[in-house]
Amino acid sequence: MHKAIAKIREGLQCAGCEAFFSLSPPANEYLTGFHGSTSAVIITGSLAQFLCDFRYTEQAKEQVQGYIVEEIQGTLETRVGERLQTLGITRTAFDPLTLTVFQKDTVQKAYPGLLIPLPDLLADLRMTKTNEEIEKIRNASQTAEAALGKMLHHLTSGITEWELAAHLEFEFKRAGAQKSAFDPIVLFGTRSSLPHGMPSNKELSPGDIILIDCGCVVDGYCSDLTRTYVFGRIPGAWFEEIYQVTRTAQEAARQVIAADAVCREVDAVARNIIGEAGYGSYFGHGLGHGVGLEVHEPPRLNMQSDTVLTAGMVVTAEPGIYLPGRGGVRIEDLLVVTENGCETLTRLPKELQVL
Amino acid sequence: MHKAIAKIREGLQCAGCEAFFSLSPPANEYLTGFHGSTSAVIITGSLAQFLCDFRYTEQAKEQVQGYIVEEIQGTLETRVGERLQTLGITRTAFDPLTLTVFQKDTVQKAYPGLLIPLPDLLADLRMTKTNEEIEKIRNASQTAEAALGKMLHHLTSGITEWELAAHLEFEFKRAGAQKSAFDPIVLFGTRSSLPHGMPSNKELSPGDIILIDCGCVVDGYCSDLTRTYVFGRIPGAWFEEIYQVTRTAQEAARQVIAADAVCREVDAVARNIIGEAGYGSYFGHGLGHGVGLEVHEPPRLNMQSDTVLTAGMVVTAEPGIYLPGRGGVRIEDLLVVTENGCETLTRLPKELQVL
Repeated sequence: MHKAIAKIREGLQCAGCEAFFSLSPPANEYLTGFHGSTSAVIITGSLAQFLCDFRYTEQAKEQVQGYIVEEIQGTLETRVGERLQTLGITRTAFDPLTLTVFQKDTVQKAYPGLLIPLPDLLADLRMTKTNEEIEKIRNASQTAEAALGKMLHHLTSGITEWELAAHLEFEFKRAGAQKSAFDPIVLFGTRSSLPHGMPSNKELSPGDIILIDCGCVVDGYCSDLTRTYVFGRIPGAWFEEIYQVTRTAQEAARQVIAADAVCREVDAVARNIIGEAGYGSYFGHGLGHGVGLEVHEPPRLNMQSDTVLTAGMVVTAEPGIYLPGRGGVRIEDLLVVTENGCETLTRLPKELQVL
Repeated sequence: MHKAIAKIREGLQCAGCEAFFSLSPPANEYLTGFHGSTSAVIITGSLAQFLCDFRYTEQAKEQVQGYIVEEIQGTLETRVGERLQTLGITRTAFDPLTLTVFQKDTVQKAYPGLLIPLPDLLADLRMTKTNEEIEKIRNASQTAEAALGKMLHHLTSGITEWELAAHLEFEFKRAGAQKSAFDPIVLFGTRSSLPHGMPSNKELSPGDIILIDCGCVVDGYCSDLTRTYVFGRIPGAWFEEIYQVTRTAQEAARQVIAADAVCREVDAVARNIIGEAGYGSYFGHGLGHGVGLEVHEPPRLNMQSDTVLTAGMVVTAEPGIYLPGRGGVRIEDLLVVTENGCETLTRLPKELQVL
């Protein structure tokens, strides 16, 4: 925590700002360890202050270290503006990626100084994980894998996508997760061609594809994992083909992920393999994204991103091929970027499995 | 859906704007019926357009009625700005409560016209529910009650808060809910004094208070419900007292909730009862809030709110008393405001129950 405060102070000095404030729950969790939904953080050269309302005072006193915790009444944004004004600060930085226009305007009404957007201040800091953060993500990843394994015991003809998703989330909690990192995607048969489909009442039948994209939160940190199986039998040679192309693309991307690789070049490695196999128009999303306190964080591994990977980033590699009306495949691992390559946190096998 | 478009067009005309755009998932779900996480809506006097990327095209074609659905590439905000510019629009409204500073700046880079914040345009529309919306919320409320009932079968000495929360979420899904409306709060014993505490490894013991605050999502709409029980025996006369005071306050608030009541006056009715009983400083949050596509929506029933209730609003009434180190009580019903009073959607009993 104290390291983050020091880094924020460095960043403020570079940008010629005297203070930073945040009203974003995940940012505030990163900076202070606080798990609640409503809080404010103010960091100046000499002060680190945490503001919350009555509901969270007891909890904040337990969780927040290194900050002066203060209970406020009324509107958080107004109190932040007043505090900045009282402190005599003239240039205050904020994160434009999370602050709403209304929040900014409300702070500004109580604060006559300058509000300066610094989109990279916190994003850059959060993008590279500490060893402690990596261990938490590893733990979340292993917890999700264990729960997924237990969920597969419930696979039986006639079970619905909903029921299977319910078993998965139950197993997440039983394995010690706080919750799902996102609504789990559990899709059977032709529905697997919906890249972000939601579980329905569709019942499992022999020959169905089973696509599961899930993750859980342990100690505040997320995991993310996708596997595609078949139930009873392989639906056809076409499916084996798209499965193997996806797997080859995923493996090739893993081979080039390392410190100093450029995100769009990594994306291109997987995309070219899928394109050369003739499925280019059926892989419409990016290769991956960062994972941390949020399940979607910078960096983005896509066709546009010029971000250069550095050791300590945690990213997904998740190519897919989706044939509308037939079915889809996605294979996703969670990876830690290292100096010479990457470490794969996800341990589940990637051979095509008939369950 | 079409009624909402017509209302937005009326609002735009009143404000002297030619177009409205939204990038907020719940707002876009309200306007279009789309359940995904990334989309844009543009409404002008003659056009209703829905923009999404590759991942959501199939889903949008199923879910979105009354809009031209278009798949875009690249940054959604930039495409929105370009579209507004191409349409020759000079004054465009947006919702400052949901748009981030970065999103606004990105739209503005591609759009030389004026961007005008209209915080009430969508909020006012969403605050009063249609009969169809009320039926969806009723359904979500009954689903949560049924699941809570099933969860109580798992109550046994030694079960942890986590495990009980896991059973609850499993029962939500089994009862047909899409998911929890928020992380369920399940607190035992003295932990019930944390108004927004999270489930821990604490094990249930005889004499423990059990506070459960939960809700689920059915057909996009949320429910919200709190009950406080005791396990095995009542922990003391102090608990019976705070239970009965809370219950009396909740009942009194229900009696005054009706069209034309002012939110802060409704809050005051419950707050005065708790204050007169000597527990005023232990009820630190507002009496309630609106519920709809989001679990916390306007109006707020608190000490500050001048909002006047109207028939069709759906709100919670949830007073509580929290004694740090001893324990807490909260009792919460979901209510529909009617012309002459309110209808209580929550049917679970409110007598103190020893389980």
